[in-house]
Amino acid sequence: MNEDTRLTQGRVTAAMIADRANVSRVAVSRAFNPHTSLKAEKRELILRIAQELNYTPDRAARALVSGRSHLVGVIVPDVCSHWESQEIDALTTALQNEGFATLLFKTRTDFSMDEKLLAYMRGFNPDSVVAFVENVKPATLARFLDRAVPIYVHYPSSDEDDQPETGPLHDRMNVLQRAGVEQAVALLQGYGARRIAYVSGVNKSRANTAREQMLRLVMAERGLPPPIIAPSDFSYDRAYGATLDLFRLEGGADAIFAANDVGAFGVLDALRHELGLRVPEDVKVVGFDDIAQSHWKSYNLTTVKFDLKDRVSALVRLILRRLNNPDAPALQETLQTRLVVRGTVG
Amino acid sequence: MNEDTRLTQGRVTAAMIADRANVSRVAVSRAFNPHTSLKAEKRELILRIAQELNYTPDRAARALVSGRSHLVGVIVPDVCSHWESQEIDALTTALQNEGFATLLFKTRTDFSMDEKLLAYMRGFNPDSVVAFVENVKPATLARFLDRAVPIYVHYPSSDEDDQPETGPLHDRMNVLQRAGVEQAVALLQGYGARRIAYVSGVNKSRANTAREQMLRLVMAERGLPPPIIAPSDFSYDRAYGATLDLFRLEGGADAIFAANDVGAFGVLDALRHELGLRVPEDVKVVGFDDIAQSHWKSYNLTTVKFDLKDRVSALVRLILRRLNNPDAPALQETLQTRLVVRGTVG
Repeated sequence: MNEDTRLTQGRVTAAMIADRANVSRVAVSRAFNPHTSLKAEKRELILRIAQELNYTPDRAARALVSGRSHLVGVIVPDVCSHWESQEIDALTTALQNEGFATLLFKTRTDFSMDEKLLAYMRGFNPDSVVAFVENVKPATLARFLDRAVPIYVHYPSSDEDDQPETGPLHDRMNVLQRAGVEQAVALLQGYGARRIAYVSGVNKSRANTAREQMLRLVMAERGLPPPIIAPSDFSYDRAYGATLDLFRLEGGADAIFAANDVGAFGVLDALRHELGLRVPEDVKVVGFDDIAQSHWKSYNLTTVKFDLKDRVSALVRLILRRLNNPDAPALQETLQTRLVVRGTVG
Repeated sequence: MNEDTRLTQGRVTAAMIADRANVSRVAVSRAFNPHTSLKAEKRELILRIAQELNYTPDRAARALVSGRSHLVGVIVPDVCSHWESQEIDALTTALQNEGFATLLFKTRTDFSMDEKLLAYMRGFNPDSVVAFVENVKPATLARFLDRAVPIYVHYPSSDEDDQPETGPLHDRMNVLQRAGVEQAVALLQGYGARRIAYVSGVNKSRANTAREQMLRLVMAERGLPPPIIAPSDFSYDRAYGATLDLFRLEGGADAIFAANDVGAFGVLDALRHELGLRVPEDVKVVGFDDIAQSHWKSYNLTTVKFDLKDRVSALVRLILRRLNNPDAPALQETLQTRLVVRGTVG
């Protein structure tokens, strides 16, 4: 591209394209949104003329007028985590279908979230923000969002705890863990497990706290002693080490409930490859999430499923509903979990 | 936030903040970039005043003036792939340190790339674009990028093939596969392997083609018969099935070179859990990438490492060098591979 076209680019307007193509300005706008319906020939004509004139629909200019950036901010502690990367993948595809692009913000893996990062995110003026980190309070986040109402993943600790929280407006995706956790404990109990350990997630994380509370509650209801806590952090390596400590220092367990699937893989490998124990004969193992790797033959993990497709649909519904109703009170979507039975309990 | 502040927001300027805080406008700008150096007290003062006045550095407005969006587009076929998700994770962190946000564009998993998606991407006016998909030619991409010079991952098929390509300007990250592939084949040969199969990646992908060519070349140089090709697509499930076919229909092999680590996991599980073969005693296995999962005990994979930290540093260097020199001729960074020896060859 030479300097001339670079300089003139930007002065060509949608109206000029519409005029030249003999179509409406709405048609020009639609031609540049990959998922709106428009006759193929019309789209081609418009894109061809736009290309000849070196026209780009300028979102920066449009954003100033419409107040919309067409960006959805996603705050994640670690894209590498299998759970988050599968979620981001599916969410990006779904949002693209609705005309939004995904803007990633990476927080430190220790779950800390400083104000510099939030100020930086604010500069991009996202239309919506999904917070997969749990240590930034709605009140803090609200100070840094001008229009976007953030969406939080929430784990009600009992079925009744579905009141909207007080404080700044935020929307919620509620995950009801009871059904899946209850099915998992019942299955373990049915196969004779009594001494059950919990290999935890990151100590401060809400997901971990809620999961441990629910496990404790369900075990008490079913007449089992409280779980032995083996502290970990959702990672393979920590869960591996926590399992060694559990058996070498704490007297072991006949079943292990891991806070997530990746942790469960670390548990399984420590049991089989370092402690010389058989799964499920000597020790039974249950995970949480049902990520794509859980069906891999080396693990073939029995796990509590939190359905990816359902999650993404719920997030997209929340985003669109909020953009159409900026002043609506707190919105909620509620999802269930269920046990997927494979080979690590039996 | 009430309607009033929402309406006034945006009229407050950096100059007003600078005035009130008694600092320079440069200091105000720095305060909003999380990684520039600025005295902590000064940053706090500026951010506090900005918050009182409900000021946001408006990137939409700035983008119109500066022509920079501070967005780096990343085109990926599938974030779920372990390779890409680890790359995106590290790249996002590195770019954030330089004041850029990562904008994800997801192409169809069949590697198709249509012009609607490119037109859509163009609308966000990215400062740079990294193309992890290989089926969009520089000529096509160039038509949809006004300023950004795309970066391609390139696999020279011989050490001499490092001439810049003709056609539209694009930058390249060259990956020299020879060293790692040669070390892998030598190790297999040293342990007596002679009948070596290649469980491939997606047929049309450049990474796959280049890897297969290099393997063929190195094996010929070392006096081995050509590899038996077991067609796969980089996924666990296809590699699992390809391994079954290889042994049930094609007479098997005494070593398998997989196009990537995830494929190697499928190979290992098929050998051990379905074909009842021992690794490395009966069959030796080598992967490619060295993703984080490769050290997991169930796999403990010997693999050709393409260092993640090196890759990300090279990409960031290319992006910054290009932004500082928009008219420079094609830029290149070149990276080596090397073998990481674990438990699947011996």
